[in-house]
Amino acid sequence: MKPRIALTLGDPNGIGPEVVLKTIADDALREAAEFVIVGNEPVLRQHAERLGLDAGEVAVWEVAPGVEAEVAWGETTAMGGRLAMRAVERAADACLAGEADAMVTAPISKEAIALAGYRTPGHTEFLAERTRAEGYTMMLVRGGLRVGLVTTHLPVRAVADAVTEEAVLDKLRIIHAALRSDFGIERPTVAVLGLNPHAGDGGVIGTEEIDVLAPALEAARAEGLGVAGPFPADAFFGRKSYERHDAVLAMYHDQGLAPFKALAMGGGVNVTAGLPIVRTSPDHGTGFDIAGQGRADAASCREAVRLAAEIARRRAG
Amino acid sequence: MKPRIALTLGDPNGIGPEVVLKTIADDALREAAEFVIVGNEPVLRQHAERLGLDAGEVAVWEVAPGVEAEVAWGETTAMGGRLAMRAVERAADACLAGEADAMVTAPISKEAIALAGYRTPGHTEFLAERTRAEGYTMMLVRGGLRVGLVTTHLPVRAVADAVTEEAVLDKLRIIHAALRSDFGIERPTVAVLGLNPHAGDGGVIGTEEIDVLAPALEAARAEGLGVAGPFPADAFFGRKSYERHDAVLAMYHDQGLAPFKALAMGGGVNVTAGLPIVRTSPDHGTGFDIAGQGRADAASCREAVRLAAEIARRRAG
Repeated sequence: MKPRIALTLGDPNGIGPEVVLKTIADDALREAAEFVIVGNEPVLRQHAERLGLDAGEVAVWEVAPGVEAEVAWGETTAMGGRLAMRAVERAADACLAGEADAMVTAPISKEAIALAGYRTPGHTEFLAERTRAEGYTMMLVRGGLRVGLVTTHLPVRAVADAVTEEAVLDKLRIIHAALRSDFGIERPTVAVLGLNPHAGDGGVIGTEEIDVLAPALEAARAEGLGVAGPFPADAFFGRKSYERHDAVLAMYHDQGLAPFKALAMGGGVNVTAGLPIVRTSPDHGTGFDIAGQGRADAASCREAVRLAAEIARRRAG
Repeated sequence: MKPRIALTLGDPNGIGPEVVLKTIADDALREAAEFVIVGNEPVLRQHAERLGLDAGEVAVWEVAPGVEAEVAWGETTAMGGRLAMRAVERAADACLAGEADAMVTAPISKEAIALAGYRTPGHTEFLAERTRAEGYTMMLVRGGLRVGLVTTHLPVRAVADAVTEEAVLDKLRIIHAALRSDFGIERPTVAVLGLNPHAGDGGVIGTEEIDVLAPALEAARAEGLGVAGPFPADAFFGRKSYERHDAVLAMYHDQGLAPFKALAMGGGVNVTAGLPIVRTSPDHGTGFDIAGQGRADAASCREAVRLAAEIARRRAG
């Protein structure tokens, strides 16, 4: 099976179209998947011309027929936000309808999509709603290192209250299901990090490990889910304990993503676990500061495509 | 100048005496420094015999004359806590009195020192009080990667309120002074991480970057301190931005230490910046689970000694 992968261009004023063009130029990836680019064709053309790249024979699904959008290199515009989100909508609907087997999303600008009237924190939440997912988790993947989060774009001030027994158990279920269906791991174990420094040190530095995490882990075990922890986050990464588990569940954004990105060195992939469709993305932003310069690194986008194809094939059985 | 370094044995029931014995066996280190072991001699002897190691000619400052303490391998005991802390007290006093030029502390158990009646969260706070330091910061060092913390052993729930303009400015001053006096960097710059994910994303994910960090950075600049930020923690480590700064100031424990330890791979050193004395330590714990097995890695302790000697020489001029 050669999965059909919809690549959204992301914000037209950033590096999205550039990493997409560089990705589809990869011969090995073209062997592994059939590509469709989703966006505004004139935007794609302007990037290709400026950077001396070529989209070749790849099909383009036009999201703004008749619109000759002009790229405003490195700028935050309502037009940029609108085109970016239309591509996300089109690709998601195509995946739901079976017209595509997976979608890989180039980065969008939160500010630009707000200018265009979209009230969503980002791809993950938007896709969860549009695909009516029952639950979902942002997961960062680099080889066997897979990091999921209980809370994502939440101020640190609000984190402790959001880490509830239900939230942790919910994320454990979603990650377990994804490890089985998407990564082919039959009996996965997930390592849970503590919320507090030293995982609370027996209650001396916060009690959430005792009051919240211990019962959540117990409930997960009662459902037959393989879990371990809670582990002190710093020692966990320092001792490479992640090598002994199939995934890590971090309690909040920087606890999981700062060490992940330190280790992934630009090759990480963002996967939304729990969706009825397959969605991955590179783990970088719009790169407005280097837009149109040809300097964008497509390594993460290539990895995102590779992983999307792998998951699509696995789900197809 | 060959600095005299006091090595405390740490908890007698853990791996402290083992990493000390392995460290003093290093020929290059013995060239660079004169060692004194601070602890209970019978404890040292039991470790040496069990592990087939030799303390050689190194002097021992006895902290419990006439006491033949018996090592309880891997156990948490009041005797263990008492001996560990007596060594810390003796070494600190020796440094204050000029009898030693630096101290390197093997790990203690918080639980054991509590059993012995000590009411302190750890070495850092204890030494700050005993040496009457005006301000201090825990700093983790591996080569040019130096990470300081605004808050340390605080529950996540309490972090946001503890990150005040004064606290951030205070830590920036201490780190700047340490970079100059201890690391020989004349005009250092310190990168400050945001408190919230994406450094608050312009106020969308928390406002502390705007309300607290921006004024703290401005005040630091007004004092002539080189500072930059606030940076999103995950992208900062993912892009290796730390290579462009002399130190990083993280807002809380796991934000700084999880990526640090992921990168340091067991070779990190803990330095207490801001003390009138020189103090470093390995960045691992008591290792009760592998006590007396000969499997403890002394790499971090050796690095701690190397750095203590370097700082002592630099302070001596």
